[in-house]
Amino acid sequence: MRATTIHDTRDIRLSEVPEPTIDADTEAIVRVVAGCICGSDLWPYRGENPITPGDTIGHEAVGVVEEVGSAVKAFRPGDFVVVPFCHADNTCPHCLTGMHSACDNLGFTESGQAEYTRVHQADGSLVKTPGQPDDDQIPSLLALADVMATGWHAAIAAGVTEGSTVAVVGDGAVGLCGVLAAAHLGADRVIAMSRHEPRQEIARRFGATDIVPERGEEGEARVAELTGGVGADAVLECVGNDPAMRTAFRIARPGSTVGFVGAPHGVELPVRRMFTHNIGLAGGMAPVRAYLPLLMDLVLGGTINPGLVFDATLPLDEVAEGYRMMDERRAIKVLLRP
Amino acid sequence: MRATTIHDTRDIRLSEVPEPTIDADTEAIVRVVAGCICGSDLWPYRGENPITPGDTIGHEAVGVVEEVGSAVKAFRPGDFVVVPFCHADNTCPHCLTGMHSACDNLGFTESGQAEYTRVHQADGSLVKTPGQPDDDQIPSLLALADVMATGWHAAIAAGVTEGSTVAVVGDGAVGLCGVLAAAHLGADRVIAMSRHEPRQEIARRFGATDIVPERGEEGEARVAELTGGVGADAVLECVGNDPAMRTAFRIARPGSTVGFVGAPHGVELPVRRMFTHNIGLAGGMAPVRAYLPLLMDLVLGGTINPGLVFDATLPLDEVAEGYRMMDERRAIKVLLRP
Repeated sequence: MRATTIHDTRDIRLSEVPEPTIDADTEAIVRVVAGCICGSDLWPYRGENPITPGDTIGHEAVGVVEEVGSAVKAFRPGDFVVVPFCHADNTCPHCLTGMHSACDNLGFTESGQAEYTRVHQADGSLVKTPGQPDDDQIPSLLALADVMATGWHAAIAAGVTEGSTVAVVGDGAVGLCGVLAAAHLGADRVIAMSRHEPRQEIARRFGATDIVPERGEEGEARVAELTGGVGADAVLECVGNDPAMRTAFRIARPGSTVGFVGAPHGVELPVRRMFTHNIGLAGGMAPVRAYLPLLMDLVLGGTINPGLVFDATLPLDEVAEGYRMMDERRAIKVLLRP
Repeated sequence: MRATTIHDTRDIRLSEVPEPTIDADTEAIVRVVAGCICGSDLWPYRGENPITPGDTIGHEAVGVVEEVGSAVKAFRPGDFVVVPFCHADNTCPHCLTGMHSACDNLGFTESGQAEYTRVHQADGSLVKTPGQPDDDQIPSLLALADVMATGWHAAIAAGVTEGSTVAVVGDGAVGLCGVLAAAHLGADRVIAMSRHEPRQEIARRFGATDIVPERGEEGEARVAELTGGVGADAVLECVGNDPAMRTAFRIARPGSTVGFVGAPHGVELPVRRMFTHNIGLAGGMAPVRAYLPLLMDLVLGGTINPGLVFDATLPLDEVAEGYRMMDERRAIKVLLRP
């Protein structure tokens, strides 16, 4: 099959690789209808994560079930499914508390930017649409495989409540979905820290009430001003690097929680400030499956439209250009059609 | 007046110093009926925190109001009060959310191991008993000035709920009070990590259902075993150093929260583990005043008896011996009578 592979820093190729096979009876093979490039794919792309040359890449996909293992009961070929980036059995003690990303049988999507991908725990991971979705629903369904569920997780972890003031650090697809989550969860004010006009525009459509284009100390001062010197009731840290984390802790009010969902790169947590200001940290790798049924209802009902984060669509053949567009910030998020 | 002063590493003296005076109209002077030595006093005692030689030390006290500033309305000379170690106005935005330890007018008890001490925000900080308490109620009331409120904060921050399994790291007075708090908040199982027999005994009296005397990897393995490999639903980190914090994150189940209340010394938070396991951190300096009315009710009603943490009582004159007893772990916590 055609699949995206990574070979070196900034060396992304479309390659011919063997199709995934059912190696365990809990698995399913999904024909990818739409995949995409994640901000976290840029870490290895930029050489900041180690890679094995020739490995497939891409962990977000929606598509049609092609084949299932003998233990898979809830899905059959032809079902249209969202594939969470992390696979879970939905029966272990961690899944039962809603923490599917710590499943005892955790697996990951390994070829989301390809024609086919394997799901390790099909029954526990996949969620199907009632029928075949309309084409214009595909982007929002695809967003549920990772970024929307991840932004949602940031908001849940940060304890967003009705009437609260929420600040979101990071204007990538996850940060924008965090804005959408906070607004949907009833925040009165959602402050989006974003200096890119197209992203500001999506943030506003997602429910941001205030835009702070400044960064660092200036941005922190601006949030302080907007919150009467008190700080935000909840902060969503949607980047994963040290400057973003520091800003998050500087704009959070005492007693609040920073919800973090960006895989930490070079982050040193400010434990003294956390102690003196009683600012907590919660979150991590999103338990996508826990949120997926609700989020799918919201998408199919037209209540949320996270697919707006896709501002470019390319055929899979042009995946390398898609990476360049995101690396150079010419696109927020690129959808790929195999 | 006679007051405890610190002069150098392990150099604690009882000195003659000027009595505190009312310098602002929100202040009160309290005649100390009982003070005590805190585990955190051992940091400067052991040379691990900087000091100014000759400074008074001690931040826990109960006593009788001696004098009040002109703006103090709720207290008058003769009232018996618990003095929270941190003083707050109880009216600023942070106090209104219950985060008194981040008060805009934060102050601290500066001479708790002395004859008199000053309260910076008397109306916002002090809580009085209905009348003069019995002598045998004094230790438990004194525990509310810091350690019991701090252990309670750890349990609240960690999100202890009814029926949960809670692990407590640290068997100092705060850790023991954390055990008491967790049990009172309805935890089904409270695992106390303690290798000192007298502390284990108090932990059991406070509601510990399991004692883990092992430390480090062995202790972590033991908690894993006790929780069926899942980890604790909530962990109270009541030490403040790096090994304790690491243990806390290793015994917490994914999706849970470590409540921390020990001022961090050399702590490097395991951000990768926090991310991959979705283990949060919450807590910090305890907002004593927020919990004080409830805790005082529980003490005066005989429901909790945190004063058991005091296993030694000395006259103030022997304060230096009290520090030695705690430094050498001959005493859990020393009560001082001026």
